[in-house]
Amino acid sequence: MHAIAIHGGAGTLPRAEMTPDQEATYRAGLAAALDAGYAVLEDGGTSLDAVTVAVRILEDDPLFNAGRGAVLTHEGTVELDASIMDGRTLAAGAIAGVAHIRNPIELARAVMEHSPHVMLIGTGAEEFAHTRNIAFVANDYFKTETRKAQLRRVLVGDTRPANELSALGTVGAVARDQAGNLAAATSTGGMTGKRYGRVGDSPIIGAGTYADNGSCAISATGHGEYFIRTAVAHDICARVAYGGATLQQAADAVVMGRLAKMGGEGGIIAVDASGQVVMSFNSEGMFRGARSSGGKREIAIYRDR
Amino acid sequence: MHAIAIHGGAGTLPRAEMTPDQEATYRAGLAAALDAGYAVLEDGGTSLDAVTVAVRILEDDPLFNAGRGAVLTHEGTVELDASIMDGRTLAAGAIAGVAHIRNPIELARAVMEHSPHVMLIGTGAEEFAHTRNIAFVANDYFKTETRKAQLRRVLVGDTRPANELSALGTVGAVARDQAGNLAAATSTGGMTGKRYGRVGDSPIIGAGTYADNGSCAISATGHGEYFIRTAVAHDICARVAYGGATLQQAADAVVMGRLAKMGGEGGIIAVDASGQVVMSFNSEGMFRGARSSGGKREIAIYRDR
Repeated sequence: MHAIAIHGGAGTLPRAEMTPDQEATYRAGLAAALDAGYAVLEDGGTSLDAVTVAVRILEDDPLFNAGRGAVLTHEGTVELDASIMDGRTLAAGAIAGVAHIRNPIELARAVMEHSPHVMLIGTGAEEFAHTRNIAFVANDYFKTETRKAQLRRVLVGDTRPANELSALGTVGAVARDQAGNLAAATSTGGMTGKRYGRVGDSPIIGAGTYADNGSCAISATGHGEYFIRTAVAHDICARVAYGGATLQQAADAVVMGRLAKMGGEGGIIAVDASGQVVMSFNSEGMFRGARSSGGKREIAIYRDR
Repeated sequence: MHAIAIHGGAGTLPRAEMTPDQEATYRAGLAAALDAGYAVLEDGGTSLDAVTVAVRILEDDPLFNAGRGAVLTHEGTVELDASIMDGRTLAAGAIAGVAHIRNPIELARAVMEHSPHVMLIGTGAEEFAHTRNIAFVANDYFKTETRKAQLRRVLVGDTRPANELSALGTVGAVARDQAGNLAAATSTGGMTGKRYGRVGDSPIIGAGTYADNGSCAISATGHGEYFIRTAVAHDICARVAYGGATLQQAADAVVMGRLAKMGGEGGIIAVDASGQVVMSFNSEGMFRGARSSGGKREIAIYRDR
C-alpha cells in the first residue's frame, strides 16, 4: 500500500471563528498538496519526491506558516527552518535560520543529497545553496499583509503569539512509496515575534522529523520547545521499534500522554512500514490530509471533520 | 550512589604516536575536570552544576576541541556549539554557531534557565547572551597555534580532517547527584575546516545530549552526522526505557552495532538512575574519566587503559 499524509500546522482558529469561506480555502490548499504528493506515489515515484512536492506546495501557499506566508520575527523579517529524512538510508538534511531560500525543503534535500553534512545554519546554509541550483528570493517575498498585521498585534500586546492561528504553524508530510520506503519532511517559519535566532523542532532530526523503514516516518507540528525536549519523532518510532507498540498507541502515548502532561500543544502525522497512516493531536485542531492506495482520501481541520 | 563521567572526544592519536609526555598532559586535563565535577556532587550539589563545571574546565583547556583550543573553520575562525539537559524536568538548552562566547556551555545553560526556548543560533544566540551575565571574548581567544597549523595542513591537502586528532573532538559530561537527578552536557568546535555553518550532533538534543531521570543521561562524541541520523543519545535511553536493555547493552547496541555498521565513528558516556557509569566507543580511543561514590576513579584514553 502506498500512502501520504500532510499537515498544515496544529494552530487553527477556534472552530466558532472559522467562516465557511476560510475553511474552504484551507481545505483547497491542503487538497492541492495532498493530491500532488499522492500523484507522485501513484506514478511509482519515491516517498522522498512525494513529501518534497507536498511540502513545496504548502510552502508556496501563503495560508500556511512556511515559505511564503511564514510568520515574522520580532524584527519583522522572516527566518525559515526545514528538514527531510529518508527512511531507507537514514540520510537526512536540515537547515535553520535561512532568509532568502524560496523553498527551504529543497535546500534541506540538497544538504542531504549533495553535502557530507546533515545540518547547515544561517548564512552558511545560504552559501551552500549558491553552489546548488536553489532558487533565491528577497526576504520581502515571504511577507504577507496578514503576517505583518499579526506581528503588529503581537508587538503592541493586543494578542499573545499563542493565541494566533499561526502559533503552532508548520507544514509537513510523510509517505510510503510502492517500493515500501518511508520519508518525512517538515518546514516552518517558527513563532510570530521570535527573537535571538530561536530554532524550534522542525529542523531537528528526531524532534520534528524522523523516518526509518524499520519503524515509521513522522512529521510534527506544535510548541517546538516541548517537541525537542521529548524528541517526539524519534520517541514515537522507538516505542514502535523497541516497545512493541502499534503506531497509533505510540503516537497517542507521546502526543496525548507525555506532551499533553507537560503542556506541549500540537500533533503529528505518521506512516508505518505497512502504509498505515496515523494522526494524533492534543490541540483543538490540526490542518491535515491523508490519501492511500487503499482508496481512503481525507482532509480535516478539527477533531471530527 | 553519585557519579560523574566525562569525555574529551573520541579522536585520539594512534597509540604508537602518543608520547608519554603528551599522554600525561591529556590525563592531567581530564583529571582536573573530573575531580572538579565530582567535588560538586560530593558537596551535595546538583548534577547540572557538576556537568557544567566539568565541561567549562574542558572548554578552558586548549588541548580539547571546545572553547579555547577549538578547531578552526575553513575561513580560519572558530564557531562553537553546546547543549545541556536536566533529566529531572527534561529542560534543555542548546546553542550553535556562536563565535564570541568564552564558555558555550554557560550560554546553553542560560538558554535553558532564562529563556522560553531550547535552541538559539548564531548572532541571535549572542544577542541573548548580552542580556545575561555571559562572558564575551574576541574570536582570536579560542585560536591556538596547534589549531592554526592543523587547518593549514588540511587546506593544502597534507592531511584529511578525519586523520587529525581533533576529527572526533568534543567534550562532555554526565552525572547523577545525591538526590538521584541526572544531567548531561556537551560542547564542541566541530570539524577542522568545516564550512557552510555546519552543525554536528553536539547541540542537538536527542543526538549529542540527552538526559531523562527515567532512563539515563548521555553525552556523545564522534562523526556528528551519523550521530544525528541515528539520534544516538535518545536511542540509547529509549532502548533502556522501552526495550528493557541494560544501559551497557543499549549503549553497545547503538555504538558498536548500529553506528559501527554505518561507518559512524565515535562513542558515548552514560549514567543511569542507579548511578552506574557506562562508556562505549568504536574508535581507537576516547579521552575519558569516571568517578563515583562507590570509590571508583578511572581516567583512560585507549581501549585497555
